[in-house]
Amino acid sequence: CALELIHCYSLAHDDLPCMDNSDLRRGKAACHVKYNEAIALLAGDCLHSLAFAILAECNLPAAAVRILAHAAGAEGMGGGQMLDLQANAKDEPSLRKMHELKTGALFNGALQLGLLCRADSVDEEFLQKESRRLQEFAAPFGRLFQIMNDIRDAAADSELGKTTYFTVLGERGAKTLANEAREEAISALGGEYARLTDLTNWICKE
Amino acid sequence: CALELIHCYSLAHDDLPCMDNSDLRRGKAACHVKYNEAIALLAGDCLHSLAFAILAECNLPAAAVRILAHAAGAEGMGGGQMLDLQANAKDEPSLRKMHELKTGALFNGALQLGLLCRADSVDEEFLQKESRRLQEFAAPFGRLFQIMNDIRDAAADSELGKTTYFTVLGERGAKTLANEAREEAISALGGEYARLTDLTNWICKE
Repeated sequence: CALELIHCYSLAHDDLPCMDNSDLRRGKAACHVKYNEAIALLAGDCLHSLAFAILAECNLPAAAVRILAHAAGAEGMGGGQMLDLQANAKDEPSLRKMHELKTGALFNGALQLGLLCRADSVDEEFLQKESRRLQEFAAPFGRLFQIMNDIRDAAADSELGKTTYFTVLGERGAKTLANEAREEAISALGGEYARLTDLTNWICKE
Repeated sequence: CALELIHCYSLAHDDLPCMDNSDLRRGKAACHVKYNEAIALLAGDCLHSLAFAILAECNLPAAAVRILAHAAGAEGMGGGQMLDLQANAKDEPSLRKMHELKTGALFNGALQLGLLCRADSVDEEFLQKESRRLQEFAAPFGRLFQIMNDIRDAAADSELGKTTYFTVLGERGAKTLANEAREEAISALGGEYARLTDLTNWICKE
């Protein structure tokens, strides 16, 4: 729930005229269109605080707050948004860096928080090992998600002049990179986490 | 530090064109003027997350995160901003409600976090008693702060057509209310917290 609130706040702010200037979100009027810009800004800010208020009620270790704050902030989603804004991601390595922060950090946060929910019943060594494993999964998984997204939205993105994996690598190159990311992600799981393996295969379906 | 970051984020967002549209902050170009609106928005968002990242490093009880999140969010500063935006605070009780959320909640958060820093060395009963006492102080103290602010900025606010304690009550009425708030705040401290008493008297100096 806390993670979803962070995601929602980021969408309300993303759609604002000074950012992506999107009138639609999930097929409906964006918050700033339905209400106004100031309300969309404040709603985002309040959802952001509410995420931490809710997380604080969960009786998770203090690390939970650290994980969510880093996933959302300048070292995560917020920093990725800044790179996106500067629009200097013009090749594959810089696209990769941007998406690792912009979307990968929140995926990783989701996985790390899920792991922390088991903190009561497992030992510290297990937690550390699995935390690394999930982090190694999250990076290629996030990349895969973004590449598939770029392949799917190729026509619309091209009209907007956006730089994406599709425009940089072409359809064939993008699909090759997606396949590499899929294999890297599944390999990182080391045969565990069957549902994450299923999810990884599922997002490859066009 | 966490609290100051929340305050800074709120200023960066407050100054945006869709909110107060202020070009100056502390005598210098506001963030959105010096950089641009999108950067000011993201900077605020990242400061907001950073506040919780830093708080999570402090080894304070989980209540610390809850206190800061509630002080900042819809039940505190964010909610007060919304009331301010709707600009329907046209009399003394609605001004009071708005400022209790908009500024009082953050003052209260500061005091409650300070108290929590002593949680290791005092018992639960003491914490609860002092928490109530500080909350009873924070409300009139925040009000006093705002009234003094309104008296000081009367000329500028009047040009902007703002509704303030000064415009609603006049100089004499505002000063009477300030004095009542000062007495209520100091009385709530019950002879303890000499520095808060000094601070209360200090902000009454014009």
